[in-house]
Amino acid sequence: MAFVVKKFGGSSVATPEKIYHLVDRVLAEKKPDDKIVIVVSAMGDTTDDLLALAGRITEHMPKREMDMLLATGEQVSIALLATAFMERGQKAISFTGFQAGIRTNASFTKASILEVNADRVKKALDEGNIVIVAGFQGITDEGDITTLGRGGSDTTAVAVAAGLKADICEIYTDVDGVYTADPRVVPNAIKLKEITFGEMLELARLGAGVMQPRAVEYGELTGTDIHVRSTFNRVEGTIIRGEYTMMEEKKFIIRGMASDSNVAKIAVRGVPDVPGVAYQIFDALAKENIAVDMIVQSASNVKEKNDIVFTVTKTDMADTVGVLEQLKGKIGFVRVDVEANVAKVSIVGAGMLGNPGVAARMFGALASEKINLDVISTSEITISCLIAKEDEKKAVNVVHRFFFPTEEK
Amino acid sequence: MAFVVKKFGGSSVATPEKIYHLVDRVLAEKKPDDKIVIVVSAMGDTTDDLLALAGRITEHMPKREMDMLLATGEQVSIALLATAFMERGQKAISFTGFQAGIRTNASFTKASILEVNADRVKKALDEGNIVIVAGFQGITDEGDITTLGRGGSDTTAVAVAAGLKADICEIYTDVDGVYTADPRVVPNAIKLKEITFGEMLELARLGAGVMQPRAVEYGELTGTDIHVRSTFNRVEGTIIRGEYTMMEEKKFIIRGMASDSNVAKIAVRGVPDVPGVAYQIFDALAKENIAVDMIVQSASNVKEKNDIVFTVTKTDMADTVGVLEQLKGKIGFVRVDVEANVAKVSIVGAGMLGNPGVAARMFGALASEKINLDVISTSEITISCLIAKEDEKKAVNVVHRFFFPTEEK
Repeated sequence: MAFVVKKFGGSSVATPEKIYHLVDRVLAEKKPDDKIVIVVSAMGDTTDDLLALAGRITEHMPKREMDMLLATGEQVSIALLATAFMERGQKAISFTGFQAGIRTNASFTKASILEVNADRVKKALDEGNIVIVAGFQGITDEGDITTLGRGGSDTTAVAVAAGLKADICEIYTDVDGVYTADPRVVPNAIKLKEITFGEMLELARLGAGVMQPRAVEYGELTGTDIHVRSTFNRVEGTIIRGEYTMMEEKKFIIRGMASDSNVAKIAVRGVPDVPGVAYQIFDALAKENIAVDMIVQSASNVKEKNDIVFTVTKTDMADTVGVLEQLKGKIGFVRVDVEANVAKVSIVGAGMLGNPGVAARMFGALASEKINLDVISTSEITISCLIAKEDEKKAVNVVHRFFFPTEEK
Repeated sequence: MAFVVKKFGGSSVATPEKIYHLVDRVLAEKKPDDKIVIVVSAMGDTTDDLLALAGRITEHMPKREMDMLLATGEQVSIALLATAFMERGQKAISFTGFQAGIRTNASFTKASILEVNADRVKKALDEGNIVIVAGFQGITDEGDITTLGRGGSDTTAVAVAAGLKADICEIYTDVDGVYTADPRVVPNAIKLKEITFGEMLELARLGAGVMQPRAVEYGELTGTDIHVRSTFNRVEGTIIRGEYTMMEEKKFIIRGMASDSNVAKIAVRGVPDVPGVAYQIFDALAKENIAVDMIVQSASNVKEKNDIVFTVTKTDMADTVGVLEQLKGKIGFVRVDVEANVAKVSIVGAGMLGNPGVAARMFGALASEKINLDVISTSEITISCLIAKEDEKKAVNVVHRFFFPTEEK
């Protein structure tokens, strides 16, 4: 008996035909005693359609109402999917986020799951149902509907799997696993059979689009294995887990690369060199839920002043500038420079811990193509470089070639 | 200070432009201290679009999933409406059925409201919000989403007004009040200033489309006055209340007429003349939630057998025949005849209690136009006649002319 949570994205339920295709695949693979929960997103373009509708009322929809609106998308798809299973003779039942017991905090439009109370899902499974759960949404203790932000369905799936103590959480995507780099950018990218939570988390955080970081985090936190696999075929994908079970998977020092051009560089110029200033800046940004990355502080060309440089996502760029402008009088910095035309290229691998010189090898690779490094940041298992956006593709390919010579494929 | 629940239908929120029109009207009429709750239906054709989508999955959607699907319609409109109020600078918040505390039984697709726990709505009003509540939907004690059936938003509005002990519940419709007959059918129909719950209930039950019977029932049960008025102008409409407050409103013996062609006549022929047979039939229909009307039992042309004739709504016709076919072996009747080409014409008025001869006057009116009566049924304040559908319009006009001579207008 397998006990699996399967997550399908919006394109898998975009039309009634695709819904039946999904149903038939799940039923073909299901053994009689299998317990199956399916987490699903909104149909195809539904979310975009709802956003367009909202845009006709206002350009700044209050976030609580935005979540009220967007949560309808998944509610439609779960009702249709459960119905399609029943049409095929399979007992099924749909649950919204609140019915599935997905408790979140009240950060509307980007809420975090606090806990999954899976009692009702468990009961429905025990009664022989395939249980269909709306991804992307939850409920606050006050009873308000929240959404987890785009792609939050992955997190829902992992959280539900954890709440149920399911064997594994399968994430169906348009790629058939996790590659050492994006195969659309690097044709020689290699598919991994396994990757650790820590590495995957870094890759996801750094822009490798396969998995949402929070979903991986939730997996790590709860020890829930995640199988990333293809919607289009039945090939084994990549399993994200606590540690490697296959020796051959450990041969590469680095495990993957990511690049991300949804970043903007913010430079706060001429910040007074007094204690607590950086705290003031980043605390104000944190209060607005703006995630900050690649922080570098350096001496300014103004005397006794520093420059504080960091990156944010492009979507947070305007908010960031707004927050900084409000602080300007209080802190007394000179100005804010914004540069959106950048990309962050990163390498990730737990193996670099025992292998000095990995950073040098990366810089060497970039230098060999005369690519200029703007900001560098490193963490235990990651090295990231901010470069000009037009060099992104070239950078990823040359670094990949240095770490994964084609012969090894 | 007024404390009002206002209900608007789907056409009032069909487009962003209409949403803002509604918002501007409400705000123009609002005094600073007024407490306002707005109950709203799904935008324009949303419900039909959702039904069409469901139809592409199956023609027989399980009712629980149907409600899961349909409830999204109102959830979209409340989010947009609350947002539009906020865009105009008015604090507002939207609540789904479950958030507004609308507890129902589990009769999916036609659930009944058991209770409204208005605590959260009250709190939001006290905080200065206009509160927007999704009509048509509620939640069972198990946490399942239900809908009240089409037009259920009227019931939501009255139930919320009752739960809040609001001063009045205003139902905005495409007519400007309750008329003695449908003005599209009877050009001389007279608008009533007041009507009692009992009379309105009979009219609604008999097919006068202005108000849902259950909404009126809820008003009567809880003593909540209901003001039926126009979406298009600010003219006073008709107030439905416990008793008349204006003497001139009592001058007519009957208060209104209704006709309904959404009925089918079911004749169970050759039913054995033994005790308990009628019980068996109507109990079985009740268990399927099929409402039965105009029951007549008469001797059959088969010896020691009876014919049992009754009407149901056309939508319940197929289910009714199904239930009867299942009983056939057990009861041993001869056959079931079904006639869908009928209409029920009714007159209603508490005044007929003290005025003998009202029925005769109605039959006389119909006879004057040579309209044949098929089944007759009467209640305390109602007389109904089943006639051929093609005579419907003629029948309504001649009866109206008899009871409301044009001179009196």
